[in-house]
Amino acid sequence: MKNRVSTNFIARGGLGAVVAGLVLILGSTAARAAVPAESAFVFNSLLFLIGGFLVMWMAAGFCMLEAGLVRSKNVADICLKNIGLYSIAGTMYFLLGYQLMYAGVDGGYFGSWFDMWAPDDTAALAEENPDFSGGYATASDWFFQMVFVATAASIVSGTVAERVKLFPFFIFTAILTGIIYPIQGSWEWGGGWLNSEGFIAFAGAEFMDFAGSTLVHSTGGWAALTGAIIIGARTGKYDAQGRVHPLPGSNLPLATLGTFILWLGWFGFNGASQLAMGSAADVVAISQIFANTNMAAAGGVITAIALTKLLYKKVDLTMALNGALAGLVSITAEPLTPSIGQSILIGGFGAVLVVFAVPLFDKFKIDDVVGAISVHLVAGVWGTLAVVLTNPDASFLAQLIGIISIGVFVAITSTLVWLALKHTTGVRLDAEEESTGSDFAELGLEAYPEFGRGSQKIGA
Amino acid sequence: MKNRVSTNFIARGGLGAVVAGLVLILGSTAARAAVPAESAFVFNSLLFLIGGFLVMWMAAGFCMLEAGLVRSKNVADICLKNIGLYSIAGTMYFLLGYQLMYAGVDGGYFGSWFDMWAPDDTAALAEENPDFSGGYATASDWFFQMVFVATAASIVSGTVAERVKLFPFFIFTAILTGIIYPIQGSWEWGGGWLNSEGFIAFAGAEFMDFAGSTLVHSTGGWAALTGAIIIGARTGKYDAQGRVHPLPGSNLPLATLGTFILWLGWFGFNGASQLAMGSAADVVAISQIFANTNMAAAGGVITAIALTKLLYKKVDLTMALNGALAGLVSITAEPLTPSIGQSILIGGFGAVLVVFAVPLFDKFKIDDVVGAISVHLVAGVWGTLAVVLTNPDASFLAQLIGIISIGVFVAITSTLVWLALKHTTGVRLDAEEESTGSDFAELGLEAYPEFGRGSQKIGA
Amino acid sequence: MKNRVSTNFIARGGLGAVVAGLVLILGSTAARAAVPAESAFVFNSLLFLIGGFLVMWMAAGFCMLEAGLVRSKNVADICLKNIGLYSIAGTMYFLLGYQLMYAGVDGGYFGSWFDMWAPDDTAALAEENPDFSGGYATASDWFFQMVFVATAASIVSGTVAERVKLFPFFIFTAILTGIIYPIQGSWEWGGGWLNSEGFIAFAGAEFMDFAGSTLVHSTGGWAALTGAIIIGARTGKYDAQGRVHPLPGSNLPLATLGTFILWLGWFGFNGASQLAMGSAADVVAISQIFANTNMAAAGGVITAIALTKLLYKKVDLTMALNGALAGLVSITAEPLTPSIGQSILIGGFGAVLVVFAVPLFDKFKIDDVVGAISVHLVAGVWGTLAVVLTNPDASFLAQLIGIISIGVFVAITSTLVWLALKHTTGVRLDAEEESTGSDFAELGLEAYPEFGRGSQKIGA
Repeated sequence: MKNRVSTNFIARGGLGAVVAGLVLILGSTAARAAVPAESAFVFNSLLFLIGGFLVMWMAAGFCMLEAGLVRSKNVADICLKNIGLYSIAGTMYFLLGYQLMYAGVDGGYFGSWFDMWAPDDTAALAEENPDFSGGYATASDWFFQMVFVATAASIVSGTVAERVKLFPFFIFTAILTGIIYPIQGSWEWGGGWLNSEGFIAFAGAEFMDFAGSTLVHSTGGWAALTGAIIIGARTGKYDAQGRVHPLPGSNLPLATLGTFILWLGWFGFNGASQLAMGSAADVVAISQIFANTNMAAAGGVITAIALTKLLYKKVDLTMALNGALAGLVSITAEPLTPSIGQSILIGGFGAVLVVFAVPLFDKFKIDDVVGAISVHLVAGVWGTLAVVLTNPDASFLAQLIGIISIGVFVAITSTLVWLALKHTTGVRLDAEEESTGSDFAELGLEAYPEFGRGSQKIGA
Repeated sequence: MKNRVSTNFIARGGLGAVVAGLVLILGSTAARAAVPAESAFVFNSLLFLIGGFLVMWMAAGFCMLEAGLVRSKNVADICLKNIGLYSIAGTMYFLLGYQLMYAGVDGGYFGSWFDMWAPDDTAALAEENPDFSGGYATASDWFFQMVFVATAASIVSGTVAERVKLFPFFIFTAILTGIIYPIQGSWEWGGGWLNSEGFIAFAGAEFMDFAGSTLVHSTGGWAALTGAIIIGARTGKYDAQGRVHPLPGSNLPLATLGTFILWLGWFGFNGASQLAMGSAADVVAISQIFANTNMAAAGGVITAIALTKLLYKKVDLTMALNGALAGLVSITAEPLTPSIGQSILIGGFGAVLVVFAVPLFDKFKIDDVVGAISVHLVAGVWGTLAVVLTNPDASFLAQLIGIISIGVFVAITSTLVWLALKHTTGVRLDAEEESTGSDFAELGLEAYPEFGRGSQKIGA
Repeated sequence: MKNRVSTNFIARGGLGAVVAGLVLILGSTAARAAVPAESAFVFNSLLFLIGGFLVMWMAAGFCMLEAGLVRSKNVADICLKNIGLYSIAGTMYFLLGYQLMYAGVDGGYFGSWFDMWAPDDTAALAEENPDFSGGYATASDWFFQMVFVATAASIVSGTVAERVKLFPFFIFTAILTGIIYPIQGSWEWGGGWLNSEGFIAFAGAEFMDFAGSTLVHSTGGWAALTGAIIIGARTGKYDAQGRVHPLPGSNLPLATLGTFILWLGWFGFNGASQLAMGSAADVVAISQIFANTNMAAAGGVITAIALTKLLYKKVDLTMALNGALAGLVSITAEPLTPSIGQSILIGGFGAVLVVFAVPLFDKFKIDDVVGAISVHLVAGVWGTLAVVLTNPDASFLAQLIGIISIGVFVAITSTLVWLALKHTTGVRLDAEEESTGSDFAELGLEAYPEFGRGSQKIGA
């Protein structure tokens, strides 16, 4: 049912409807009614800017989620890691990553290494391209791609929290965001082999990953998984008999806030991955993406609540939060072609996988503080495969090859970096530092000096 | 004083002014200067998307406000309720509500039940409607209406916190958002009888509620009030002598954060209720709404601070927060026609009402954990009546009939649902569960395991 | 390298690229391709609205930053101060400030005192100015300028926290936002003498302060500095031997959240200070500003982390947070002309200054609870001077005169107000109130009644 003017559109405001009528009269030919090229340029750039600040905000979401799920003795350290990694990610992407990822594109954003200090020249833009056919401001695209890199790095910090050393973690972040992420990113978004004619001929379609279930989330997940294995579990998490001892997070409303922030940011993550807003067709697509993204998360929450109630008799809040995130990751590879109903199901199934994956990783003594591997890697793989369910142009084989090739590449390179760090700087706090907490070991302070452990000291 | 180019517009940036001049030269006839229909389509949809994500963010605001105002033993449970209710609200609105609310509109968004699995077809859109006279992407409108429903449900959770059972609360939420809200919403925004010619002939004007002081906030308030009465007060809140024992909230900065989040979200709530941004007239209206919304909240804060200082010698922070919210609710029924000065007064008077309503409800032993009934119901009624003060087209009789008819409908239906739940699943934790806290009873965990109660256990 | 259609633009989405092509065909002449004047009007106003709500959100950022950095006994009071000052700032700017700042502009927003109760008349707008050459909705500009004032006031509250009395602080806020800020603001943004032909002839250029390193941040910093001196240090911060005793903040994740909020809001602060989005050139500028703003903050974080590690062996989280803010303040005077690389350096050097300024102020026993003087005043001066490094139109002399004249004016007027308050109402809590905490003294409640101090009482 298209093109209705809903009665509430007329009923409320009123003004809008009247003016819309006026516009129609003025714009009486189809050509005049279209979006002028310069307006489309503004719309496209604006989409990147709005999407970009929403994804930037996800850095705060990861920080709050992780600060809420670690024990209080490691809270300040995880805050520092999160604001640090966001800063390092952007800087490395500027120095290396963006060029590496889009090197085939006429020399990339900077033209050459020596241009990197020169900002966009708007006078030149207007002269070279008076009708703005380029589509968008290059800096808006750079900003949007940069915040994506930071997201991949944020995934890792949660998994390896509470025992990884600060500066080795930062070095890993720099290599992940400056080299590993951009190389695999170039394979698909940089116009690389996963998009090539040869690949399409072989696999039946290009690899399809709309906003990065694989390119961003699985990539972060593989880096986290290899880190968790190489660094090892937190002391006390698993005993000799293989029993799991939960180490409960210190501040669940903060973790909930983090989840809401991530949910909000995801509208930018998926919505602005449409990459254009300069036409009715684009904004219709973005609107569908917003609705689908929201409902996949909602499906994940409801599923996680129902399933944990069934399995454990009590509802698990942290699983509900991870259910939301699982739904969001699951819809990220294809947020456009599903209907709302299908989105709920895709997100819900992602949450089912996470509810079962979390204890499974524990069985293998892979200690993931926040469940990031389950959420970003497992649901990321599911979401990438699920593209074929709603997008008739997708090929299961192409999706599988994309998932595996990127997985193998990131797992191997991450392993090499973690191992190199382990045998040089070391990657793990020593036993006493871990017991005292990373806040004291790395920062010499406490996140909550007057509460819990802190207040006992003050009382003593 | 219209159409000035302020000197700071020229002084700063510069570029903008030069380009604006260029645009004027190019757009030398009035017809060419107008917004093309497709651009208007993009602007209108974009308004819904920005407004929608801001209102979605209000879900986090309610969650933080409530998490800060309950005692620490009920914090995780209220977080779960908030993320759960947002998810349920969207899903129920998708399954039932949207169709029920806008059923008269050519079959609604889904056309029919069987279409609900099909997303927007952009090719069909372009073909059927090459000049985009429809106004906006249907999914953007759906997204915006959906987040409104969730707001109504969020109001209830705060009032009945700390003693309502989790799943009965979710069932109530599902019925409120899937059936009760949409039916009363259809009366006005769905083009129902409160908009009808007969009603206008009788009452002198249609019922006017720009962004939902009554349709959203009072509706949530009535549902909360009936719940508070039927579920009963928290143990220990009122003693046999009728004295009130405050049960202070556990985390006031979190409650403050929640208020700021709600304030931010309200720009979307009221601003995007203009429902169109595709013309200068629309964006002038939206701008006025932003300014008025902000200043009504400011007026509420200042009033609450001054009044509690006068009445109680000390300033009450939670009352200042509720003053902000009261100001926001008060301006919601008519955020466009007041001047900024009038908005401050309307918001300020809303705060006066709340400062007196909170102890009044306590006198009747109606236990409202966060003051939501005072804020959303009392200020909502006031805001709806206040429309006649600044909008000459409004009729006091029409406003009164709208308030009463919706109030009666929501109060009766909510009562029936709460009573049905009471006599089947039960609606209230048993005394021991309430004493231990809903976190332990429903979730088997603690929100702050290392602080307060939790740290005592660890110390033991 | 301009105007490229990046391969990922084509690869992903697809739809966008196709439609962009269509737009190009329809918009085949340069004239038709330009942004129509009314569309530019909408874009410009939308920029103010988006920028405005982002800057409004900074009020929450300051609140969380300060709530995290004070001790728990002063947390509720600082929350009240922050929501109160934001409300007072807007109200005073409405009553006095906006008119004072832009009085030369055709009578200002209100035309006259008597017009202040009348909202924008859109019908009159359309009649007087059918091609919308005015550029933007006046209320959108008002909203944007109003949130800037609040920012200046927010800076003060952090410095003088934990010992200033509530109502004298509010009175200071009212005078700062209603009189002091607007007068100095008028010198530059109001088209005053720092923009005048005579000044330019003398100094070689007008004073340049794009988004307010001096006009907003130094202004707040001077007001804070004079307050810190006149009110005096917190009891116990400095002993008779001149040793500094740190009084650690109670909730570092909250302070981190506040920093992320401020970072997010700064995209609006700097980006929307372009003051126009109605052309490709404008949105290119805004995009560059977004990228530069982000990377200056990133440079600040990395610098602060590295420098505190070098100086103190441990990384200081609160310094990393202040490093981010220092980077943001530093780039605010000129976020457009630097390249990304230059922005990192400008922000990084701002952080260096802050790392050394914080202990320096302590040496002079100037007690600044959150480091706001170092961040907003010191980095603000640096940022204003740094304009000459990248903007060839800037003059060092002009920058210096602007910094000094505004500094002298704000320092003197602030001193007079603080002294007047000291000798009438008093500005400082008495010793016992300070020891018990401002929460109990001013509000009669506790921010965290069940944690820390609160839980000990409950345990007693």
